[in-house]
Amino acid sequence: MPTVTAYATPAAKAPFERTTIERREVGPKDVRIKVAFCGICHSDIHTGRGEWGETNYPLVPGHEIAGVVEEVGSDVSKFKVGEHAGVGCMVSSCGHCEQCTNGEEQFCTDGGMVGTYGGELDGKPTDGGYSAEIVVDENYVLHIPDGISLDEAAPLLCAGITLYSPLNHFGAGPGKNVAIVGMGGLGHMGVKIAHAMGAEVTVLSQTTAKEEDGKKFGADHYYATKDGDTFKKLRGSFDLIVNTVSAQLPMQRYLSLLKPRGAMVNVGAPSEPMEVPAFALIGGGKTWAGSQIGGIKETQEMLDFCAEHNIGATIETIRPDKIDEAWDRVVDSDVRYRFVIDTSTFDD
Amino acid sequence: MPTVTAYATPAAKAPFERTTIERREVGPKDVRIKVAFCGICHSDIHTGRGEWGETNYPLVPGHEIAGVVEEVGSDVSKFKVGEHAGVGCMVSSCGHCEQCTNGEEQFCTDGGMVGTYGGELDGKPTDGGYSAEIVVDENYVLHIPDGISLDEAAPLLCAGITLYSPLNHFGAGPGKNVAIVGMGGLGHMGVKIAHAMGAEVTVLSQTTAKEEDGKKFGADHYYATKDGDTFKKLRGSFDLIVNTVSAQLPMQRYLSLLKPRGAMVNVGAPSEPMEVPAFALIGGGKTWAGSQIGGIKETQEMLDFCAEHNIGATIETIRPDKIDEAWDRVVDSDVRYRFVIDTSTFDD
Repeated sequence: MPTVTAYATPAAKAPFERTTIERREVGPKDVRIKVAFCGICHSDIHTGRGEWGETNYPLVPGHEIAGVVEEVGSDVSKFKVGEHAGVGCMVSSCGHCEQCTNGEEQFCTDGGMVGTYGGELDGKPTDGGYSAEIVVDENYVLHIPDGISLDEAAPLLCAGITLYSPLNHFGAGPGKNVAIVGMGGLGHMGVKIAHAMGAEVTVLSQTTAKEEDGKKFGADHYYATKDGDTFKKLRGSFDLIVNTVSAQLPMQRYLSLLKPRGAMVNVGAPSEPMEVPAFALIGGGKTWAGSQIGGIKETQEMLDFCAEHNIGATIETIRPDKIDEAWDRVVDSDVRYRFVIDTSTFDD
Repeated sequence: MPTVTAYATPAAKAPFERTTIERREVGPKDVRIKVAFCGICHSDIHTGRGEWGETNYPLVPGHEIAGVVEEVGSDVSKFKVGEHAGVGCMVSSCGHCEQCTNGEEQFCTDGGMVGTYGGELDGKPTDGGYSAEIVVDENYVLHIPDGISLDEAAPLLCAGITLYSPLNHFGAGPGKNVAIVGMGGLGHMGVKIAHAMGAEVTVLSQTTAKEEDGKKFGADHYYATKDGDTFKKLRGSFDLIVNTVSAQLPMQRYLSLLKPRGAMVNVGAPSEPMEVPAFALIGGGKTWAGSQIGGIKETQEMLDFCAEHNIGATIETIRPDKIDEAWDRVVDSDVRYRFVIDTSTFDD
């Protein structure tokens, strides 16, 4: 089997090592992609550091993959050699359950989606995009339109769809007041996308330190949640709040910011349960929901939307010897706004 | 001002007393209704016993009111003398805010809806339907169609709309699996309405003691939540769960019963916050929502729907000297399924 260069973490909290991994031979429905850039997602870190249950090491993380098609199998109809292609959080699913049939493979009920890394496919662990190449069934590969550069496209494959999906499902658009809680890797994508959808966009961040950036990304308003007046001032203001913060929030205060029939959608999950008074939902007929990436069809729709609206992630590009440092900086919220690994340098 | 017979509770946990209250002169837009029946809602008890904050005594509760139009004001266009009419949880609202304009007066953002009892209108406390007559602005009066008897119609004005609204908003209908949690005054209406909407209906009750009734009301399945196997067996089954129980529930277990994109809607609110792990919503893109009665337009739609489908509440009718006993029995869940006071006996 062909081997390719990859960067793997050999154990929880051990530094990354340059290594080689096997990639399968290109089957009839497979696409072989030369990875150009791979985004660093906070999930990589949670998994890599063993914070989300048991991890099989060595782990090659990475599910924000953008690159170029190098080879296609004999039955591949959707991709051609030389095209730009992406891979997100999954590389397979059952393909026949109600969810898969509806294009919601992320919710596959027959075995679940197979994660791009840390999953298992054909009896072997899956390895992610911190690698020079990846081979994936064409049904789980995305087209990256020419309008977006590969480096700025990479984070769209997870951060982009994670925000696009709730904004899309909960009707962000003209005439809607949308708040994005948190302005990190996820939040900054939410601001850009909600603005492009035509919504009036407010950022709710702990401080106003990133206000200038937020407004550049398309925010109409920017408030510090550390300032208690914010909650009084914005009471009953929003049709939709998308919460990107993986921390305990005072839910009752946040729900009070919604208009009647408004929805708050979590894409970040703290490990401890949230305390939510039911009456904060009942009065006003409000909704608290969760959202998890999106299906392949919606991810393609998101990429096309981003290309049309000239949206990419705002990134810092690093070489692979800086992955450990980058992880530490992500944990410290010290990145504006997403790290992208330049995988073209792997064989330097 | 005209006075009418009413039953009032003079203080928290004091027995009811027969008394007289003033009703306003019929204004140009007013409808005077001779109350025939008034349902006993658990809210009456919470308010009457001072369990929901401060109550102004003496209190005349009752917001499930069905009767006959006795007199109409000079500008009333919607009602005629002799027609059957109902009054639910509100008797006024601002009438011009976004919510009122959208027919969602229950969420009025300019001063809030005025409760049928325990509220304040024109500087005076409002008195509910445990009374012989009530005078209400025609915009807050409902038509009770001929197909429903007044006694079985009364509880529809609160219990009926409380269940109809979430079933309607969250798409209960053919091809949908709907669970109703709890089979009391609210729950039994949910079973009847969800069944009439064409959904496959499951009751989740603590025990199977009321299974026979549930199936008579239209339930296709009936499970005891005390049986741990129920949660294993029904995992991932429901598009919609309407929770009528005002108690702490193990939310993670209930959310696990939803299909991806499914919704659980609370109409019952325990006083303590619920503990909900965000990941139980994120995995599967699920929703936890609240619902509070419904607007006037939707309440009329519900009454027309119930008449068309031959749905009324299943009731026990009592005379006013049994109100105290009935309240105790409601608290003990010892009623099948709603008490209705025969107000025509008030002047006997």
